[in-house]
Amino acid sequence: MKDTVNLDEFEVGYDIPAAIDMDESEVQTPCLVLDLDALERNIKKMGDYAKAHGMRHRVHGKMHKSVDVAKLQIELGGAVGVCCQKVSEAEVFARGGIKDVLVSNQVREPAKIDRLARMPKLGARTICCVDQIENVADLSAAAQKHGTEIECLVEIDCGAGRCGVTTIPAVVEIAKAIDAAPGLKFSGIQAYQGAMQHLDSYEERKEKTDIAIAMVRDAVDTLKAEGLECDIVGGGGTGSYYFESNSGVYNELQCGSYAFMDADYGRILDKDGKRIDKGEWENALFILTSVMSHAKAEKAIVDAGLKAQSVDSGLPFIFGRDDVEYVKCSDEHGVVADPKGVLAVNEKLKLVPGHCDPTCNVHDWYVGLRNGKVETLWPVSARGKAY
Amino acid sequence: MKDTVNLDEFEVGYDIPAAIDMDESEVQTPCLVLDLDALERNIKKMGDYAKAHGMRHRVHGKMHKSVDVAKLQIELGGAVGVCCQKVSEAEVFARGGIKDVLVSNQVREPAKIDRLARMPKLGARTICCVDQIENVADLSAAAQKHGTEIECLVEIDCGAGRCGVTTIPAVVEIAKAIDAAPGLKFSGIQAYQGAMQHLDSYEERKEKTDIAIAMVRDAVDTLKAEGLECDIVGGGGTGSYYFESNSGVYNELQCGSYAFMDADYGRILDKDGKRIDKGEWENALFILTSVMSHAKAEKAIVDAGLKAQSVDSGLPFIFGRDDVEYVKCSDEHGVVADPKGVLAVNEKLKLVPGHCDPTCNVHDWYVGLRNGKVETLWPVSARGKAY
Repeated sequence: MKDTVNLDEFEVGYDIPAAIDMDESEVQTPCLVLDLDALERNIKKMGDYAKAHGMRHRVHGKMHKSVDVAKLQIELGGAVGVCCQKVSEAEVFARGGIKDVLVSNQVREPAKIDRLARMPKLGARTICCVDQIENVADLSAAAQKHGTEIECLVEIDCGAGRCGVTTIPAVVEIAKAIDAAPGLKFSGIQAYQGAMQHLDSYEERKEKTDIAIAMVRDAVDTLKAEGLECDIVGGGGTGSYYFESNSGVYNELQCGSYAFMDADYGRILDKDGKRIDKGEWENALFILTSVMSHAKAEKAIVDAGLKAQSVDSGLPFIFGRDDVEYVKCSDEHGVVADPKGVLAVNEKLKLVPGHCDPTCNVHDWYVGLRNGKVETLWPVSARGKAY
Repeated sequence: MKDTVNLDEFEVGYDIPAAIDMDESEVQTPCLVLDLDALERNIKKMGDYAKAHGMRHRVHGKMHKSVDVAKLQIELGGAVGVCCQKVSEAEVFARGGIKDVLVSNQVREPAKIDRLARMPKLGARTICCVDQIENVADLSAAAQKHGTEIECLVEIDCGAGRCGVTTIPAVVEIAKAIDAAPGLKFSGIQAYQGAMQHLDSYEERKEKTDIAIAMVRDAVDTLKAEGLECDIVGGGGTGSYYFESNSGVYNELQCGSYAFMDADYGRILDKDGKRIDKGEWENALFILTSVMSHAKAEKAIVDAGLKAQSVDSGLPFIFGRDDVEYVKCSDEHGVVADPKGVLAVNEKLKLVPGHCDPTCNVHDWYVGLRNGKVETLWPVSARGKAY
């Protein structure tokens, strides 16, 4: 498949939801729209924060899966590169010109390891995570076969309960094996506490992150005593980046959702008890949807259902409206309670999705809006790249 | 975009999960796989049932979004055509050669109405639903503009609580308006009771369907008295088709999930109190997933998370295994409880998704398996066609 996109090959309303310069009112729904002004402010703000705190920012590309958004984060936000979760996704970013790509995940399957080992030939620094020592020999063999170098981070499970080792001796054992393996370079530690990012309370998030930070500090110090320096000590998300930034031990942030925001993240509270979507970050991502039936006075049916979003983290909310509410979601329909009957057929609403990552993954395009006009159409470049 | 697919243009492990004739063990995960034998048996069984009961079967293409599966349902199951939910989806089926296509939904937006009116030029009988009289003039104008005919069904809300009218006078009023409108043909009634398909109890489903049937009978009789015959009286899903088939008033079934099955449908009970996935229908659709970390003894991490499935109707179950259980789903990971530590890294598991429709919609390909080999690779032709 081609890596570049020629919009002239696509038909509006069939392949693509809009055309450049189209008025916002003509955009075909349901589709993802980006408020470009809000997006740019979010990106700039996080970039400035990271710079001011001496942190590198490796933006999480698994959230948006877009080469174009990643490039904006590099240009405008000073990001060093991207992280993502799958080899095929990493290849999209590398082919798209991103020069520093971390697969913040394990790569175990032989064909995937082989592809990973070929990735440096695309011009990208290539990094992955390791949490079982058996993986080291396979990665090393593939890197040697292709004459490339794979950088490896030892992944620590600092509370998420998924991948990652849980003891310092395990970290050291795997780090030494990586360091000794031809074709591999030991580059540090991956320690993302995914499970606490969405806790509402700032204090609870701090408590969980403090535990992670202590574990990471122990690991870094022990590795240093063994002669192993960590170039990367990475982690930190939209719900915790200020903790890692002030830890004195992490040096790389990996935030994703801050750029787009969503309903589930938006409701977590900052240190002053304020929702983070009411000041810290702006909603930049919306599902644009249209009323397509209003046969009952008190409810409107909109055209964005389960095939336009993921409801794993709850239903979307309707941006800027408190007179109507999205109350039910089925395959192709959303039911919007409209007690006063204010909505008209074909009226458009902007939904803030419950969870941005899997919602972006069901769409092919981002429609970038500014001043009521379509300014950009960006492909969700790595959509479906799950291998 | 091209409507035909040349597999040589795609790269295994980047664009496509497998190649024809590949051994099942080499398929790249996560991806959707079909047990072709089970699929064919399901399709044949429903086709035989419909034929024996004098019912037409218009298969629901919104479930699989695949021209190839629809063609199999026509060839092997005697289906008359497809129904689907969006104009862009209908265009995929029409462009793919399906000659009878119902958009079992309202079409209200001007550009979508225009596309719908052009659809007969693709060679397909084109039908849509109407639930507000204001829609009739717009559909009529578009059909006249393009010199085509759009057939219209009046949609009755017989319990789903979404689109559709709720009174017989409203049915008659809209039917008459359609009948009188140039370019349109009144073709009958759409009455799908979506809300009760997933109730576990057969008796409860029967009770709800009986209410729908009574309402539909009333509508058909009243229309007949007004001189309006219903060519199509359509509805019926995997949880109810036997009720509509024996109603004496419905003449068209619109089942979807029977062909693939899923975890949520599978647990509803037949009239003998047996799960419908334990005899009535076979599981033919699976998410193939691999163990990609087993750093903790008691849990394995697999590579199918929220980007490989929709969990709106619950988590998937692991097919054919009662020793391990899929217990948690995050963006790219599934946590599988493995209390006895029986799973190995790179071992493959087959997940039966909670809800097939939105799960199919996140994938690009169906990998058709027979006797442990890849026999077919079918694109999810209408994936992302949400407009």
